[in-house]
Amino acid sequence: MSSSTGSFPTQDQGFALSLMLFQVVCLIFFAIKFDIANSNNLDSETETEDLRLRDYYAMYMDVHVMIFVGFGFLMTFLRKYSFSAVSINFVVAVMSLQWGIIAVTMVRQIGDNEYSTKIIDVTTLINGDFAAGAVLITFGAVLGKITPTQLLWMTFFELIFYAINEYILIETLHVADPGGSMVIHAFGAFFGLAVSIMLGVPSEEEQVHNISQYNSDMFAMIGTLFLWMYWPSFNSAMVATADFQQERAVVNTVLSISASCASAFAATKVVSHTKKFDMVHVQNATLAGGVAMGTSCGFAFNPAIAITIGLIAGIVSVLGYRYVTPFLEEKIGLSDTCGILNLHGMPSIIGGVAGAIITASVSDSNYGSSLTEVYAARDWRGSGEQAWYQLLALVIAVAMGTVSGFIVGFYLKSPVIFRQQKLKYEDEEWFHVPENFQVTVTTPAFNYVEAK
Amino acid sequence: MSSSTGSFPTQDQGFALSLMLFQVVCLIFFAIKFDIANSNNLDSETETEDLRLRDYYAMYMDVHVMIFVGFGFLMTFLRKYSFSAVSINFVVAVMSLQWGIIAVTMVRQIGDNEYSTKIIDVTTLINGDFAAGAVLITFGAVLGKITPTQLLWMTFFELIFYAINEYILIETLHVADPGGSMVIHAFGAFFGLAVSIMLGVPSEEEQVHNISQYNSDMFAMIGTLFLWMYWPSFNSAMVATADFQQERAVVNTVLSISASCASAFAATKVVSHTKKFDMVHVQNATLAGGVAMGTSCGFAFNPAIAITIGLIAGIVSVLGYRYVTPFLEEKIGLSDTCGILNLHGMPSIIGGVAGAIITASVSDSNYGSSLTEVYAARDWRGSGEQAWYQLLALVIAVAMGTVSGFIVGFYLKSPVIFRQQKLKYEDEEWFHVPENFQVTVTTPAFNYVEAK
Amino acid sequence: MSSSTGSFPTQDQGFALSLMLFQVVCLIFFAIKFDIANSNNLDSETETEDLRLRDYYAMYMDVHVMIFVGFGFLMTFLRKYSFSAVSINFVVAVMSLQWGIIAVTMVRQIGDNEYSTKIIDVTTLINGDFAAGAVLITFGAVLGKITPTQLLWMTFFELIFYAINEYILIETLHVADPGGSMVIHAFGAFFGLAVSIMLGVPSEEEQVHNISQYNSDMFAMIGTLFLWMYWPSFNSAMVATADFQQERAVVNTVLSISASCASAFAATKVVSHTKKFDMVHVQNATLAGGVAMGTSCGFAFNPAIAITIGLIAGIVSVLGYRYVTPFLEEKIGLSDTCGILNLHGMPSIIGGVAGAIITASVSDSNYGSSLTEVYAARDWRGSGEQAWYQLLALVIAVAMGTVSGFIVGFYLKSPVIFRQQKLKYEDEEWFHVPENFQVTVTTPAFNYVEAK
Repeated sequence: MSSSTGSFPTQDQGFALSLMLFQVVCLIFFAIKFDIANSNNLDSETETEDLRLRDYYAMYMDVHVMIFVGFGFLMTFLRKYSFSAVSINFVVAVMSLQWGIIAVTMVRQIGDNEYSTKIIDVTTLINGDFAAGAVLITFGAVLGKITPTQLLWMTFFELIFYAINEYILIETLHVADPGGSMVIHAFGAFFGLAVSIMLGVPSEEEQVHNISQYNSDMFAMIGTLFLWMYWPSFNSAMVATADFQQERAVVNTVLSISASCASAFAATKVVSHTKKFDMVHVQNATLAGGVAMGTSCGFAFNPAIAITIGLIAGIVSVLGYRYVTPFLEEKIGLSDTCGILNLHGMPSIIGGVAGAIITASVSDSNYGSSLTEVYAARDWRGSGEQAWYQLLALVIAVAMGTVSGFIVGFYLKSPVIFRQQKLKYEDEEWFHVPENFQVTVTTPAFNYVEAK
Repeated sequence: MSSSTGSFPTQDQGFALSLMLFQVVCLIFFAIKFDIANSNNLDSETETEDLRLRDYYAMYMDVHVMIFVGFGFLMTFLRKYSFSAVSINFVVAVMSLQWGIIAVTMVRQIGDNEYSTKIIDVTTLINGDFAAGAVLITFGAVLGKITPTQLLWMTFFELIFYAINEYILIETLHVADPGGSMVIHAFGAFFGLAVSIMLGVPSEEEQVHNISQYNSDMFAMIGTLFLWMYWPSFNSAMVATADFQQERAVVNTVLSISASCASAFAATKVVSHTKKFDMVHVQNATLAGGVAMGTSCGFAFNPAIAITIGLIAGIVSVLGYRYVTPFLEEKIGLSDTCGILNLHGMPSIIGGVAGAIITASVSDSNYGSSLTEVYAARDWRGSGEQAWYQLLALVIAVAMGTVSGFIVGFYLKSPVIFRQQKLKYEDEEWFHVPENFQVTVTTPAFNYVEAK
Repeated sequence: MSSSTGSFPTQDQGFALSLMLFQVVCLIFFAIKFDIANSNNLDSETETEDLRLRDYYAMYMDVHVMIFVGFGFLMTFLRKYSFSAVSINFVVAVMSLQWGIIAVTMVRQIGDNEYSTKIIDVTTLINGDFAAGAVLITFGAVLGKITPTQLLWMTFFELIFYAINEYILIETLHVADPGGSMVIHAFGAFFGLAVSIMLGVPSEEEQVHNISQYNSDMFAMIGTLFLWMYWPSFNSAMVATADFQQERAVVNTVLSISASCASAFAATKVVSHTKKFDMVHVQNATLAGGVAMGTSCGFAFNPAIAITIGLIAGIVSVLGYRYVTPFLEEKIGLSDTCGILNLHGMPSIIGGVAGAIITASVSDSNYGSSLTEVYAARDWRGSGEQAWYQLLALVIAVAMGTVSGFIVGFYLKSPVIFRQQKLKYEDEEWFHVPENFQVTVTTPAFNYVEAK
């Protein structure tokens, strides 16, 4: 649509400046505070590479695919915003994984008051992708409504709060959350919802393209399926391998996310407007069981529990898309483009609560000598006490996400600092969009209906 | 197409009921008969996780991608049935992998009369995906012709027969079939063809949308390529690692499936209607070499044999699409939407026969001490005798598939039990399909041709 | 477009003949010169499979995805050539990996004058995929302009020169180039540019379809992202594991290709025609940091260096697309459909030069006992001398690629030997293209623009 080019002749060179500034900040941190393993800074006899690369690489690549193809394509469902979804996801993820590594490392060093050069290994890279996951969840709430420049600055600030929250939960409260129900999903979702409330709801006219079409829904399914398939890698990538804990994380996640797929298909058939399958539900609610298993995936319980958690998450997610999101948009001015409340917010609460209940219920004998690898603090805490800490962590993650989201959202909304997105849910403001060429043999709609 | 909504106001809430019933049955079995590894039910010293997770996980994820993205997108080629293909494949696969784990485990326990709690590990999950493979092959024959509800019930019954057939072949006849030429492909294909014969051929008018368009063919290529690339993982995932057997399974499959790609491209250019490349052949026949290597992939023979098997499979598959499928549809009323006879049926027979011939031909010295890991029964059988057992297994797989397919097809066709699909090869009956929005600069077809 | 069928009634059965001839030649070589591991030809005690399969398989599959989905979909961006891009990429890759294995093995045996049966293992397969990478880079320059038959013959000859070049660089000059900046990218790119110069520039009318449309750009992003994500596997697959070298290859590639994504997004926003993001740049220039890290990925340097190299590569690549390619097309008649000069040519020179500089700069103590695993020749060469050899290798790769490309291009252009492509950048000459069916609710372009 070259027609719209004229409207923005000198638009927003702030983007390139912001991006390069951001990248240079990352470059400086990497130059000063980080290094790569070599024979001087690591002892290859005590730290074998097998424990650093072979153990994590395949799962790392799966997580990588979830971040770039999974999130990227999941958000292409809008009919005129697919270029933006996959491309902006790309560059935001790239900055997030770099800045995420830096933020998490620096907050940890400041918190521990122990400053040393950090050697980047594959687990560091996985933590970078995890941080990107939180930012991309947030992106889902504001998709189509804010500019890439705003997103870069949001990324910068969000990850600082993300790192603080992660430090509090893991290093201070010593809770278990290997797949990030609380650290990633709850924080990222409530941060995004708070940002979105600050930005307000676009007018009905502006929302004319807040809708899918056939091919954009098909592209979104690429994202859905790669997220769905690789979720077991996401939840188990950072789980200690001792005593089958990682194997459990895989099996539990497969069962839970399978169950959420089943319950989402059943629920959408019953509650959707048309009593048919709604692709929004198929694309999103099917994944809720992965989110809900992020805390407890490594715990040792009967497989029926994982399936039950997944079933509940899938149904709750569909109900959220059908009833809660429209309700909140109307009542409290919360516009949530991808429905992250339903895919990440509510399932993460289910996941956090389930994690606490399971923590209180499972016999220690199931863990044997690996008890403190599952729960770092079980040396000095009982299982009941640990369960309360798990719940406290969930509350903190939601609160931290919400409060910091409001702060960052307030900043992003400032008309002095940022030009706001003009064309909502459309590529044209930021992308050169090629003319759509077709040799079409069109059967007009009315003829087609008649013909039946 | 909201126009069609009115026609089915209260349609088929049987789907949600069937699906939840199916899921609850799975839940109960998982609760009672299965468990996940923990320090009480497994001895972590004797059963190291390395032998359970690290050895299988990467290949498991590849198989997972084949099941959900491979099969799912391969079947999106129909111009108005892409939502259905990828989504119904999704939910059917999810139920298949759960019920497949249960069916295979229970049949094995009943057969061996030895009942114990089954600990789910990654190999269990791979076997679940293998079972899903058989069901999704079957789905290809009836694509666009039966309802999701019928498919759920088909899945339930097919996997019971699948598990019985698998038990007979592997545990009773002790044949080698690690990539499932017989257990998965032959059974699944002939089951599907029998079901499809029972359902009959849609009328010419009903088949108006049994055709592809440009983008649906492109989406299907995603499926083709992921199936093609990861087929070595499928064939080698469950092969014992001793004495290079698994390495052979990888190399043989790469060579065979490469050769079938080459011969399919050559054949389609020669025999297709237009003497051009036909995307149906490119999408399907290129994969025949993977199917045909499913039995013999781990055997030790000259690489030229693998290539020859692939070459034959690719050509036979193209000839099947071009000549056999239209012939059978007209003569015996066999409608085979995806041409599974050509991609799975005939190549699986090539694979089974090739497996028998190679079994009879290869010197035992090639296997050294791993002979009984390749063939469980070679302790007491000669290679010639084993070859006859391999052939017998092929006959049984085809017969079991066909007979049980007729039974299940008869049941599915019953108008008393099931409402039949009304709109053939169209999403609208089951999916809310968004309006197709475009700003198109259309060059009318006639102008375009003139312009050349 | 069946309208064009009539124009080519008896077209080019040379394709099927060429392809089968090519495949039979491969078959004969595999039969005579190659074998697969078995208990007779390998000692399973000294050569454990773990060191052959487990160490390489996951990365091999990633490389496989890059070759078939990465390159295949990256080239689907043309609006009427997507079938061709993904399908011809498929068959050319399949022949390349077979013939590449043979060519590299035979040239090495001739060069070393040591003839023995080659046992195919996973590293052999990776080398086959690497060879395919070079051919597919070349394909990018001539995309839409030459026939599949010509491509097959080009593949046959290119890989002979590729193998000779690889032998000279690695076995004679003993340079380090594990990710193939020189062996794969420089050779493949300059070979392709030379072929393309020989073929000439299509007329303006012939270039009417040398342009993308919305969905073809979306499909191309699938290719971009899988290339981007798996590039760390490409660069590290063949790196020795000792002393963290492979871990460094992963980390350096992630950092470099992240930086090139960032700088490409910044640069396209500043220099593109419309001052918006240009999908050509997003699809291609984001990858330049992977190419530029192909030589030095395993070297031991500060992570800020990898980021800097990536930043430069991304910017240079965007500037190439924006200014250099149009300039060269006009001035020297170089038509470069995918801009391989910008994605592979110039970044590979950056990579080769950076490799030489880093070679001269890094202290040997960083490598410890693994120095000769990083640089095979550092037993007898100083680091400065090695740096000059690295530069020499870059010059040779560019020269070998260019000269052999001109020779093969001259041959391909011969009207006596080859029928030339008639319909440029269009599927119809070679593919049966289905009619495009749609039920479209079209908002005419002018109305839509008015409505804003």
